[in-house]
Order: sequence, then structure tokens, then C-alpha cells
Amino acid sequence: MKILIVGGNGKIGKKVSAHFSKKHEVIIAGRNSGDVSVDMADSASIKAMFESLGKVDAVVCAAGEAKWADFSSMTEDDFYIGLKSKLMGQVNLVRIGKDYLNPGGSFTLSTGILADHPVALTTSAAMVNGGIHSFVKAVCLELTNSIRINAVSSGLVEDAVEIYEDYFPGHNPIPMKKVVNGFVKGVLGHSTGEIIRIYDNC
Amino acid sequence: MKILIVGGNGKIGKKVSAHFSKKHEVIIAGRNSGDVSVDMADSASIKAMFESLGKVDAVVCAAGEAKWADFSSMTEDDFYIGLKSKLMGQVNLVRIGKDYLNPGGSFTLSTGILADHPVALTTSAAMVNGGIHSFVKAVCLELTNSIRINAVSSGLVEDAVEIYEDYFPGHNPIPMKKVVNGFVKGVLGHSTGEIIRIYDNC
Repeated sequence: MKILIVGGNGKIGKKVSAHFSKKHEVIIAGRNSGDVSVDMADSASIKAMFESLGKVDAVVCAAGEAKWADFSSMTEDDFYIGLKSKLMGQVNLVRIGKDYLNPGGSFTLSTGILADHPVALTTSAAMVNGGIHSFVKAVCLELTNSIRINAVSSGLVEDAVEIYEDYFPGHNPIPMKKVVNGFVKGVLGHSTGEIIRIYDNC
Repeated sequence: MKILIVGGNGKIGKKVSAHFSKKHEVIIAGRNSGDVSVDMADSASIKAMFESLGKVDAVVCAAGEAKWADFSSMTEDDFYIGLKSKLMGQVNLVRIGKDYLNPGGSFTLSTGILADHPVALTTSAAMVNGGIHSFVKAVCLELTNSIRINAVSSGLVEDAVEIYEDYFPGHNPIPMKKVVNGFVKGVLGHSTGEIIRIYDNC
């Protein structure tokens, strides 16, 4: 299987890439590293990436950003960082990428626990994740050629505990192996329109 | 209580306005009608509306649009119609309006069943509704002065059946009285961060 992993060198992406590389052909896309360059916030860049690759069997997204800040300090433009990158970046991956997927292929997007259980400072990040959840449930009704789409929504991952634990009081870290399995379920499973939730104490 | 109802002359808004007018001072805001003019997609217009009104006790939003179309025909700009209007319009109502709410005041936003149970043609509308659900759950953690925020998410409403029933196969119409009660719960109840779901057979 030829699997494109956008953000495949990131904290989660590199574990996902390492796993799939054992048995599949993995192409890593990233803003500053990887096999092919892509800027998630720029649909022309997404189009150029797919043009350079030709057909693939699966698209995994482990990329996309959103601003974290006090709601009272968030400007309208601050919200647009997440809307352009993690939200519309993933919508554009599907919108453009569907024409580059082989029949029976799949998209596995990334969201996160904030969609369902936000913490302080995450009005934008939560909103973006929740938007993608509903998008996945809607777009699965319309994709053709047996193309599937799911999203992996994980809690605070083990490899990010050091940086983020103060923002997630009482959250049990999710082992990387479980996060990777979320993406395995998306790519090798048969469901569509599923939000693959990997939460611990909620 | 002084209640601002954005979209108070719309299909749902007029029933909500009629109800609250019996016992409260209602100010209707609309793009082309009402007591005060506002363009939901323009934050400067939202700011000007609040400046003209002074402090209010409750803000109800029954406005905001998103494009319905086949996913395969949706352009990036088509998605931005909903992102600018129903999504960021409501975020901006809260972002700007929080400074014009009396202590203990409330926001009651509008989403819809598509967030949880989308139908075909609604990739954008579903996404916007889902985004607002998560935004409400996130922002309630940060609002000060005992300001509450909730969202009313209704199924296909009785008054819209004639136009939309073909898009919602098998959906039981929601009586307008129940929809109005969703907004009553938001404005006069005591919860915050709640998605007030008014669905029938799902």
C-alpha cells in the first residue's frame, strides 16, 4: 500500500510513519522536511503535492496547527490560524486528494480530545477539532469509489506530556502505541465516518 | 431582562422573539430588518451593533449562513461562506459581546442537528455546527462575570419542513414550541457549556 503521511516527521507522525514503513511504502510530507513539501494552509501547495505523487492508497494527516491563548486575548485573526491550517488544511486534503486516491482508499485525519473535552486556552483548537469531527461524518456520505474517511481523536499523548501536562490537569497520557493503533484502524480497518476516540478517564 | 436577538426576524428567530417579548425587552438585530442592523460576517458591524445598544442581559443568535452543495462541487471559498458567517460570526458575537453583557448574562448560540447527524450536501454546514459545539464547551471555561454560554441544536423545524424535508429523509419535524424552549433554557436556565439538543428519532 502506498501511504502518504502529512506531518509524518512530527511528534505523532513519526511514530505512525515508523509503524507503516514496516510493511508499506510510506511517503512523508512536511513543511520543512520529508519526501515532499507541503504547506497545509495553502491549497495550491496541497494540489502541487498530490500532482507530484500521483495516485496513493491512503492519506494520513498528522499535521495542522491552531493558536492556543486566553480567549480574552484572541483576535479574529488568531482564530483564522487554526481555520486555515488544521481545519481547512484537512478539508482541502480531502477536497483535492480524493481525486488522487485509488478506489477503496482512505483518509485518516487528526483531531484531538479538545473537541469533546476542552481545557482552558483552547477555544480555537477545540473548535477546529469539533468542526473536523462533523465534517468527517458529513463527507463520508458523499465520497465515491469506496473511499473511506475517519478521524483519530487522541488525548494528551505520552510523547507530549513534558510540554503540555500543565494544560491537561488529571489527564492520563495516551501511550504512543495506542495512538498509532488509531491510525492503523483508520487505514487498514473498514469503517468510514468514524471518530476513533482514544481517551482515558473521560 | 434586555435581550438582543440576532436574526430575530428569521424563521426560528421570530418565534423566539415573540416568546421573549411577552415578558422582556427584546431588541432584534438583522441584516435587512429589525431594530438594529448587523452583518454577522463582519466583526466591525458586530462591534458597531453592541456600541449602539450598550449593555444587555442576554444575547441570542438565530442567524448565520453556510453553503449547502455537493462536496464534489464545493470550492475552498464556498467553505469560507460558513466559516465567516455562522462560525466566526458567532465566535465574534461572543468575543466582542462579552464586554457588553451585564454580569450573570448569557449567550445562546444556534447550531443544528447536522453537527451530530449530517445529511448529504452539508459538509460545510455540519462542520460549522460541530465547530460551534466544541467552541461553546471550551469558551465556557474562560468566560468571567458569571456569563454563561450554551447552544441550541435542533432538528429540522416544523416551519422549515416545506423547504427542507427532501434533504432530511425520515426526520421527524421539531415543533416550534420545542425549539423556542431550547432558547428559553439557554437564556433563563442556569447551565453553561451545554449543547441543548432537540432531536427526535436519533
